[in-house]
Amino acid sequence: MSTQLNNVFVEILALQEFCVNLLQKLSVPEEEARLIAETLIEADRRGVHTHGVVALSRYVGLLRSGAMQPAAVWRVERDKGPMAVWDGQRSNGQVLGCRAMDKAIEKAKIYGIGMVCVKNGNHNGAGAYYAQLAEKAGMIGLAMSTATPTMAPWGGAEKLVGNSPLAVAVPAGERPGIVLDMAQSVVAFGKIDSIKRQQKTTIPMGWALDRDGVETTEIEKVYSAMPVGAYKGYGLAIVIEIISGLLFGGSYGDCAKDSGQGPSFCFCAIDVDAFSDKAAFASAMDARIDEIKACPPAKGSAGVFLPGEMEHSRFVAAQERVDMEPAIIAELNHLAESVGLDQRL
Amino acid sequence: MSTQLNNVFVEILALQEFCVNLLQKLSVPEEEARLIAETLIEADRRGVHTHGVVALSRYVGLLRSGAMQPAAVWRVERDKGPMAVWDGQRSNGQVLGCRAMDKAIEKAKIYGIGMVCVKNGNHNGAGAYYAQLAEKAGMIGLAMSTATPTMAPWGGAEKLVGNSPLAVAVPAGERPGIVLDMAQSVVAFGKIDSIKRQQKTTIPMGWALDRDGVETTEIEKVYSAMPVGAYKGYGLAIVIEIISGLLFGGSYGDCAKDSGQGPSFCFCAIDVDAFSDKAAFASAMDARIDEIKACPPAKGSAGVFLPGEMEHSRFVAAQERVDMEPAIIAELNHLAESVGLDQRL
Repeated sequence: MSTQLNNVFVEILALQEFCVNLLQKLSVPEEEARLIAETLIEADRRGVHTHGVVALSRYVGLLRSGAMQPAAVWRVERDKGPMAVWDGQRSNGQVLGCRAMDKAIEKAKIYGIGMVCVKNGNHNGAGAYYAQLAEKAGMIGLAMSTATPTMAPWGGAEKLVGNSPLAVAVPAGERPGIVLDMAQSVVAFGKIDSIKRQQKTTIPMGWALDRDGVETTEIEKVYSAMPVGAYKGYGLAIVIEIISGLLFGGSYGDCAKDSGQGPSFCFCAIDVDAFSDKAAFASAMDARIDEIKACPPAKGSAGVFLPGEMEHSRFVAAQERVDMEPAIIAELNHLAESVGLDQRL
Repeated sequence: MSTQLNNVFVEILALQEFCVNLLQKLSVPEEEARLIAETLIEADRRGVHTHGVVALSRYVGLLRSGAMQPAAVWRVERDKGPMAVWDGQRSNGQVLGCRAMDKAIEKAKIYGIGMVCVKNGNHNGAGAYYAQLAEKAGMIGLAMSTATPTMAPWGGAEKLVGNSPLAVAVPAGERPGIVLDMAQSVVAFGKIDSIKRQQKTTIPMGWALDRDGVETTEIEKVYSAMPVGAYKGYGLAIVIEIISGLLFGGSYGDCAKDSGQGPSFCFCAIDVDAFSDKAAFASAMDARIDEIKACPPAKGSAGVFLPGEMEHSRFVAAQERVDMEPAIIAELNHLAESVGLDQRL
């Protein structure tokens, strides 16, 4: 690894092997370990470090406590035409996410749309990865999730609502597709954690509330994350937790915690071919992307970007090496030691 | 009508008859006129006056210019299992909305989910009405729409993106259901128009941008509406315009204008019964609603509300009379005169 500014660059191949070996030490089958490693490293390559390999220590804890099964299994509770409900039986969230989206894609090929819901899951990193599985199959992909409560209902003080991440990926023609991946909080708690790791004590206004439900900029006083767009983000969080949890007996709120039943998910695929001509769709997407990119920038703006465009650029740039926070690397090395893995980053 | 503060109270029955008679003067069939009137007055009763009978002068203009067909017709372009695409042939947006959601509900009864997309439509008021058709059928309803561009892409100066309204309605048990109805802009342009009608000259910070893409509080300088939650609302607006327009050859951006091909829509119904036990779902919804209502309020907060709760309270309170802006009543009376209708409000 080499150093640039405060971050370090890590070879992707080495990081991949490290993650696979680490997970195998905890009895995760190699194929699944590779998939988990890939989804996490892809998030790091996209610059979404809050959802990258930093999650490994959490997963190791879950595997050790028995809250996460080392080898993924699930039970099909319902399966009817375009929809299905699975009991994920606390398998790994990444493996469940990939398999469930694969099933949604398979259904969308037949029915035009597919919707696969999964209860009793585990944290599955960035939803973009699963949405993009559909994108790669020429479909629009949606991945939603319930989450541990980090937000207060709008006007409230207590943490009762998860940030209900939503990812949507849309294929284009010659341009990269559009990938929206957003939590319904202004920022993820992981981002506040990351700032804390940098020994900073303050965050910008508008990110978080204290225990009284009042906005705060002091990291030490942070209790809950603020919903994006006030009551609108809170409303989105509520309806997403219903569709990706409550609807089919999946967990939400406090039950979605790692120590509860884990989060639940909803994966949807919409087959472009069923709704219109694929080629016409691809060129309409390219034209719309070009139209937006040609928008005159606002005074003082850094430019106009499509959802996911910056993440895609970072991903393409990080072909061989990925930049990481030294604290995360140190944590991973410590984790390796704790599971008896000799390899170090 | 009687007066309270600046507003006037109008008898709902009189308003209903007025709207029906007005639309019939423009050759709208009585049954369709009743439906259009009901959707608009329901929005006013819910306090969402931006999407209420104020829209009538716009519809009269569209009917007069031939951009809106007086009697609704549509052509089924695709219909395959749970999904369908209709060409709305510039019929009235309310009638298309109700018929398309009815079809989505019918499909969801068979397939668990139903998705009906409509191109070449017309403005259809508040999406909540259509989403609630599904709610009344024991389903989760989603109504999305493309819209005339009122927002700049994040970082841009030019108005290229519609505010892509999204409505989601979820049935509960003994409690009123949850109804989220939100545009992806911080406020609707209609709200800024309403403030203008009140002879005010300023709006709060964070609502709108000027022609340079810079935030402004001066109504006279307002050019575009700001997306809710900055780049997140912009991202949502983009993916919603794709799903409710670009996906199936429907219009978006400039083409979604009244003078273009009109907006396009996507209506989805998710049958609770297909995903879980209806009774268990209803009691889980009631319990979740109670849990959120029991949240301790934030310091200085007016209380904790579920999405759509305040609108529902207003709706229930407005059983016989609805409060309206005098300027809107004056406009409606002027409209009546212009079409040779003797009735006045």
